[in-house]
Amino acid sequence: MQDEGRRRVVIEGVKPQIDGGRFAIKRTVGESVVVEADIFTDGHDAIAGALRYRKTGASQWSEVPMTFLSNDRWRAAFSVTEIGRYTYTLIGWVDHFKTWRGDLRKRVEAGQDVTVDLQIGANLIEDASKRASDNDAAWLRLQASTLRNKGEAAPHKIKVALDDQMARVMERYPDRCLATTYERELDVVVDPKKARFSAWYEMFPRSGALVPGEHGTFQDCEARLPYIAGMGFDVLYFPPIHPIGVSFRKGKNNTLTAEPDDVGSPWAIGSAEGGHTAIHPQLGTLEDFRRLVAKAREYDLDIALDIAFQCSPDHPYVKAHPEWFRMRPDGTIQYAENPPKKYQDIYPFDFETRAWQPLWEELKNVFLFWVKQGVSIFRVDNPHTKPFAFWEWVIREVKQAHPETIFLAEAFTRPKVMYNLAKLGFTQSYTYFAWRNTKWDLTQYLTELTRTEVREFFRPNFWPNTPDILNEYLQVGGRPAFMIRLVLAATLAANYGIYGPAFELCINTPREPGSEEYLDSEKYELKSWDLESHLSLQHVITQVNRIRRENPALQHNGSLRFHQADNERIICYSKQSEDGTNTIVVVISLDPYYTQAGWLDLPLEELGFDPGQTYQMHDLLSDARYLWHGPHNYVELHPYHAPAHIFRMRRHIRTEHDFDYYM
Amino acid sequence: MQDEGRRRVVIEGVKPQIDGGRFAIKRTVGESVVVEADIFTDGHDAIAGALRYRKTGASQWSEVPMTFLSNDRWRAAFSVTEIGRYTYTLIGWVDHFKTWRGDLRKRVEAGQDVTVDLQIGANLIEDASKRASDNDAAWLRLQASTLRNKGEAAPHKIKVALDDQMARVMERYPDRCLATTYERELDVVVDPKKARFSAWYEMFPRSGALVPGEHGTFQDCEARLPYIAGMGFDVLYFPPIHPIGVSFRKGKNNTLTAEPDDVGSPWAIGSAEGGHTAIHPQLGTLEDFRRLVAKAREYDLDIALDIAFQCSPDHPYVKAHPEWFRMRPDGTIQYAENPPKKYQDIYPFDFETRAWQPLWEELKNVFLFWVKQGVSIFRVDNPHTKPFAFWEWVIREVKQAHPETIFLAEAFTRPKVMYNLAKLGFTQSYTYFAWRNTKWDLTQYLTELTRTEVREFFRPNFWPNTPDILNEYLQVGGRPAFMIRLVLAATLAANYGIYGPAFELCINTPREPGSEEYLDSEKYELKSWDLESHLSLQHVITQVNRIRRENPALQHNGSLRFHQADNERIICYSKQSEDGTNTIVVVISLDPYYTQAGWLDLPLEELGFDPGQTYQMHDLLSDARYLWHGPHNYVELHPYHAPAHIFRMRRHIRTEHDFDYYM
Repeated sequence: MQDEGRRRVVIEGVKPQIDGGRFAIKRTVGESVVVEADIFTDGHDAIAGALRYRKTGASQWSEVPMTFLSNDRWRAAFSVTEIGRYTYTLIGWVDHFKTWRGDLRKRVEAGQDVTVDLQIGANLIEDASKRASDNDAAWLRLQASTLRNKGEAAPHKIKVALDDQMARVMERYPDRCLATTYERELDVVVDPKKARFSAWYEMFPRSGALVPGEHGTFQDCEARLPYIAGMGFDVLYFPPIHPIGVSFRKGKNNTLTAEPDDVGSPWAIGSAEGGHTAIHPQLGTLEDFRRLVAKAREYDLDIALDIAFQCSPDHPYVKAHPEWFRMRPDGTIQYAENPPKKYQDIYPFDFETRAWQPLWEELKNVFLFWVKQGVSIFRVDNPHTKPFAFWEWVIREVKQAHPETIFLAEAFTRPKVMYNLAKLGFTQSYTYFAWRNTKWDLTQYLTELTRTEVREFFRPNFWPNTPDILNEYLQVGGRPAFMIRLVLAATLAANYGIYGPAFELCINTPREPGSEEYLDSEKYELKSWDLESHLSLQHVITQVNRIRRENPALQHNGSLRFHQADNERIICYSKQSEDGTNTIVVVISLDPYYTQAGWLDLPLEELGFDPGQTYQMHDLLSDARYLWHGPHNYVELHPYHAPAHIFRMRRHIRTEHDFDYYM
Repeated sequence: MQDEGRRRVVIEGVKPQIDGGRFAIKRTVGESVVVEADIFTDGHDAIAGALRYRKTGASQWSEVPMTFLSNDRWRAAFSVTEIGRYTYTLIGWVDHFKTWRGDLRKRVEAGQDVTVDLQIGANLIEDASKRASDNDAAWLRLQASTLRNKGEAAPHKIKVALDDQMARVMERYPDRCLATTYERELDVVVDPKKARFSAWYEMFPRSGALVPGEHGTFQDCEARLPYIAGMGFDVLYFPPIHPIGVSFRKGKNNTLTAEPDDVGSPWAIGSAEGGHTAIHPQLGTLEDFRRLVAKAREYDLDIALDIAFQCSPDHPYVKAHPEWFRMRPDGTIQYAENPPKKYQDIYPFDFETRAWQPLWEELKNVFLFWVKQGVSIFRVDNPHTKPFAFWEWVIREVKQAHPETIFLAEAFTRPKVMYNLAKLGFTQSYTYFAWRNTKWDLTQYLTELTRTEVREFFRPNFWPNTPDILNEYLQVGGRPAFMIRLVLAATLAANYGIYGPAFELCINTPREPGSEEYLDSEKYELKSWDLESHLSLQHVITQVNRIRRENPALQHNGSLRFHQADNERIICYSKQSEDGTNTIVVVISLDPYYTQAGWLDLPLEELGFDPGQTYQMHDLLSDARYLWHGPHNYVELHPYHAPAHIFRMRRHIRTEHDFDYYM
């Protein structure tokens, strides 16, 4: 406190910063954190500042000098090179030497006597020498004595004082005894690259049997791996793999009474055979599961598990821990409800229980159990129906021990709630994408996700379908609708997924008109899929995933920009790699029925292209190459054979004497 | 911590809130604080919330229930009734009774058996009875026993359970044992009304002599009070009234050498006769000053003093406290500079001195000294050249003892710095108004000041001129320019001021072309003004100030809206009182040379007017009344006789049988 009143620099308006530093921002390994702040002091003194950062737990800060932008705004950046947590803050100080140097130059230019000023400078330099390393210290003392030497002529002294080398050395030893440190330390969660760029494939392992009608096993899944990896996916996500309850088991198409041979919903977790850490006996053993995980990894596929914190009435917890559920006055346990609807096959946990601490510990151990089996990606079912404080705690606990873990929030709920779950720690989030089907809706939504503060904490994962969501657009639009939605999901969002094989086979019959449920949904019965169907989008998906892998522009969302198309059914947008060398322009017709044509308007200069130069548009889907010139160009899209272009934009960088003209 | 994990409600996105609660918002007595927040919980439970507030230091919180808006947003408001500081925060909780009641209704409507549900309700009601007052407790116990009574028919029990009276009583006794309190307590500084609504008149008391050429006195100022109060001003602001230094005294027109009879700049504070707590002997005595303050108060005029923390070389501080200044290596004291310019008549304080604590105390005592003489308004000179931390401390200290004190920041500097000074405590602020003269500039600037978060902490005070600023528009536009700028300042900003008599006499000759300094500026010489000049705007000013006093719409800035005018030289805007009964529409030509005409477009419905009804536009300047119908109307403005309309918009609320048709 002795010096508090002498600290003259103010640091404020620091960005990125979520809710005053209450939550961390997110990055993946190798990404940079660009920090901006308003830094200023009273009066006319020059100032300097530095961005300080460290891996959480490290004792030393690293520093990057801040660069002045304009209007009191400063900027610096650092890269996060390791998975885990980082912290950053800022420091600023009055730079008396810089002020003095600037003033001296003006005085000299005005022809003023600078005798006293040179003495002031000598003092500043000598002070700095006390902070300097041996060599620099000696050099600085020498310069100071030159400035003080009465025998030396003023012009020489001035030259010494204003020397660039002098400025550089002095910059190394600033006097920071009155520096201001920003009042908050801000956090970054650093995830593995898959947190930012991933292609998910969801399948019910029980439907993977080679023999139609049989209950699939993990071994069957092993046989399916080449098919899934061959399409280019890198996450294979299973609905719950645990024993399924029999009490109040749901029948086919969600009927209230199950037939004896009905398999039940995997989300009715737990039976006499075990709960959240057990495996459905018909799928195989824990050993089988571990082998599948290892096998999948050979295909660069991570197995993601579905964590649904709820119990069937037959779950072992119900007897062992009745205190974790809500008891009704008649002595029964409260089942899930959305009055007047009753879900008697599901008991929710009572998170208001006084025994919340053991409950939290147990649920944490469920994650840790599966981590131990080699799982590092979890799709969390309905997190918005469990307390926010629990998620913040459990995700932090798991990531403290296993920072590579990825949590995908399956919350289809109100925007504030979805954003809060992302802020408190979920790595990726399901979105409203399934209900954004027009150009206006898509543009609005993606602008919110990628151009506002939301981008700092919310990583969208776009799903054109899920076992719960067969949207109207897919129901009515047929195969072209599936192609359109595939390309939108895969190019708008760096993370996307499909629920297959229903997706690639273009299955689109709803349970009833107006419903988004599948008819004969796989949630309640075994399915056998004809993967060889002529309708299959397998080859398009393979192509799209290859394009994503080969083009860094599609591996993040921050550069997304929408461009003008004069037809409301045509949407056009671009993404660019950070270094600007990879530019992708996507043009899609949103009309699954008719041919659509129109004129695009590309901001060539913004994209780093010379408006006077011809450029090549290489359609990575059809491999066609077009030579375009200027911002306005014509496109025509046909729902059946080509509802979309994924163009790589290439500059003309060689002469006609070279073989390959464009890169 | 025992219950931390059971608290399920989240409170975030709280507004107003400056920099995560780092700074207070501002209000004046009687104003309301409207607080909004996102409040939600997991799952489908009903929630409730309250806004809590208290005068700082009070032990008890007052509470107002939050009202649901939409999209998880809630709102509540409270009024600040006393000058000083208030604190507010929020509390939210899961409302199990409300959830239960809503569910019961749905179950009953679906014809379900509700036996167990009624028992659950009885338990909730009995629990509430334990929190209730005696009467309510007995009543609630009675209702609970009815719900439990096996002899009672279900329909009667349901009627009792769903009764509105029951809901109202239960609302009084919520179970808040698991409530979430927002993590921050946010502050409000409550100022007297003059902080929000004031009309300032600046004059040099030394130029107030009745006999031309003589040095004016406080007694002369007394004689000037009827003139100033007669125009309707309520703050009379004097440049520094202290002894003026003789060393390096500036001559007329800021020349470097003063003639023997030159009076010097009042901002070169301090001589052998005293410093910041002394009075220039030629103005009078402290006794005279106190009498003037009292006399002014009889005219509802507050005297505002100029606090300029800097010293002439002759200031007593220089000898008594050399440690408060920066010493140069040659033993002299560092004078003010902006290299290569030197201001040798001014010694700035060295706020980096190790003796900063005694210096801060002394400067605080300067404020307290003048407060003791009856001054409660200070215009602070160049606050941006002294440390921000000092201002935050000194304003807080002075206001702790004298919460009615008003501080006007005279900082003409970069936007971030101006806003920071306002955040840290300045009550009002000078602005860029003098350099905003076109429709676009005015609209942009006022929108930033009144439609963004800035409105919560920055109270603009608009000055068309100051002794330092004679802007180009006034220099070239003559008397119409003065009228235009007067009406703009007085109607755009609830706080405004003029530097007189130079303003009302339309003095507009600059020291040299391109300069904003006055020729023969009063800063360096005595002036004698012809207050009877035929050019004087005295009567227009009187009218404008009367209109401001009579129309609550003009007494705050929050309701300012700009409206469409199809002529770029015509600006149109409205303000409305909080209750909507007072609507002012201002139409001004920004052209001081030529007649301008055009069509306005008023959003009648937004202003609370029936678009189908004729309304009256009563020009409060000319007293003319126009009947308008519909949004589009024609105006014509003449620079010499009427460059502006200040309309009061009146609804037709009576029939033709009444005498006065419009109110």
